[in-house]
Amino acid sequence: MPQASQPVIEALQWRYATRVFDPGRQIDAATWSTLEQALVLTASSYGLQPWRFLVITDAAIRSELRPHSWNQNQITDCSHLVVMLKKRVITAADADRLIEATALTRGIEASVLDGYRQMIQVDLIDGPRSQTIGQWSANQVYIALGNLLTSAALLGVDTCAIEGFSPPDYDRILGLESSDYQSCVVCACGYRSSDDKYASLSKVRYSAADLIEHR
Amino acid sequence: MPQASQPVIEALQWRYATRVFDPGRQIDAATWSTLEQALVLTASSYGLQPWRFLVITDAAIRSELRPHSWNQNQITDCSHLVVMLKKRVITAADADRLIEATALTRGIEASVLDGYRQMIQVDLIDGPRSQTIGQWSANQVYIALGNLLTSAALLGVDTCAIEGFSPPDYDRILGLESSDYQSCVVCACGYRSSDDKYASLSKVRYSAADLIEHR
Repeated sequence: MPQASQPVIEALQWRYATRVFDPGRQIDAATWSTLEQALVLTASSYGLQPWRFLVITDAAIRSELRPHSWNQNQITDCSHLVVMLKKRVITAADADRLIEATALTRGIEASVLDGYRQMIQVDLIDGPRSQTIGQWSANQVYIALGNLLTSAALLGVDTCAIEGFSPPDYDRILGLESSDYQSCVVCACGYRSSDDKYASLSKVRYSAADLIEHR
Repeated sequence: MPQASQPVIEALQWRYATRVFDPGRQIDAATWSTLEQALVLTASSYGLQPWRFLVITDAAIRSELRPHSWNQNQITDCSHLVVMLKKRVITAADADRLIEATALTRGIEASVLDGYRQMIQVDLIDGPRSQTIGQWSANQVYIALGNLLTSAALLGVDTCAIEGFSPPDYDRILGLESSDYQSCVVCACGYRSSDDKYASLSKVRYSAADLIEHR
């Protein structure tokens, strides 16, 4: 089952923040389904999955979002635009939902998981982390983003992660203002245009010697 | 070059938060080197790479960290323990460093990149995002975490992302208190023990229908 090292590194070398997508080229349904599965399989703290993903293909919505995204053309020209949402707060209901799903999936009594539920309660709901829970939720969403960027590259799908957008405007346009979730980060997915001059530029990375220290 | 979909999903299905590592089994040098390359290749906003990675194999340091990690055995029993650090603040020097590296890598004059540098200045150094720059840096580190979890799974390497630790104690033990970087999240890497009963439990995920919405 384990892959050779070379394809993983080649995919990560091939990946770049795509500036110009080919607007005529769509991700096929099977490949997109795989990327949705990859998103669903993302790891999260306690397995709480404090996220939702809006996949926007509607041209009118994308046109409306674009001016609130520094007018970046990727918003309208990519194949699938993913707005990654984070949960605003973590509540007892979130813990209960996870415990119920776990009990159901594993065919056990929910009461077996009381200790686990209590850990979530003490840490995220009542503990000091609850004071900065938006940061915690965002962190989990960024795990999903990292997973999506890598999984897409392995499938030969181009991406551009986008932080340059206005979350309040996105929330308004997407009708999230009174929901439990809010816009966190955006990822445009599709295929690079042959016109994208950024595709051929050398990747700029600090050296492993600069970034990694062994102790 | 693109991989088939199946190996990616199989790897993500195979991955789980490893609770018991086989302390006798080390990641070989070539595989570990691949994972370090994967970390270095991680995407980040503006390409700023506001991170450092400490790879800790020293048993004494790991023993010292463990009590500040909810006493989790993964800290001492995994093969390679990665403490992922985020940059505390983003300064003009960070922008200059990136611009210089870009000019050098691409063989262009740094002045060509003045507009790009200005965007970083206005957004991260002088702009509203500078007020919550620690969150921004953490987000980037979590992209690296997501990439590491997925890349490792593809190579058949087990991982456990760990938020249950005391960053101030880690910073003290690792001598980071007066450095520009601080502990953000931890990832234990190695191989699952045959004793880990969590390895065989069904993964608990909300359905794609619950998590993903198409518009």
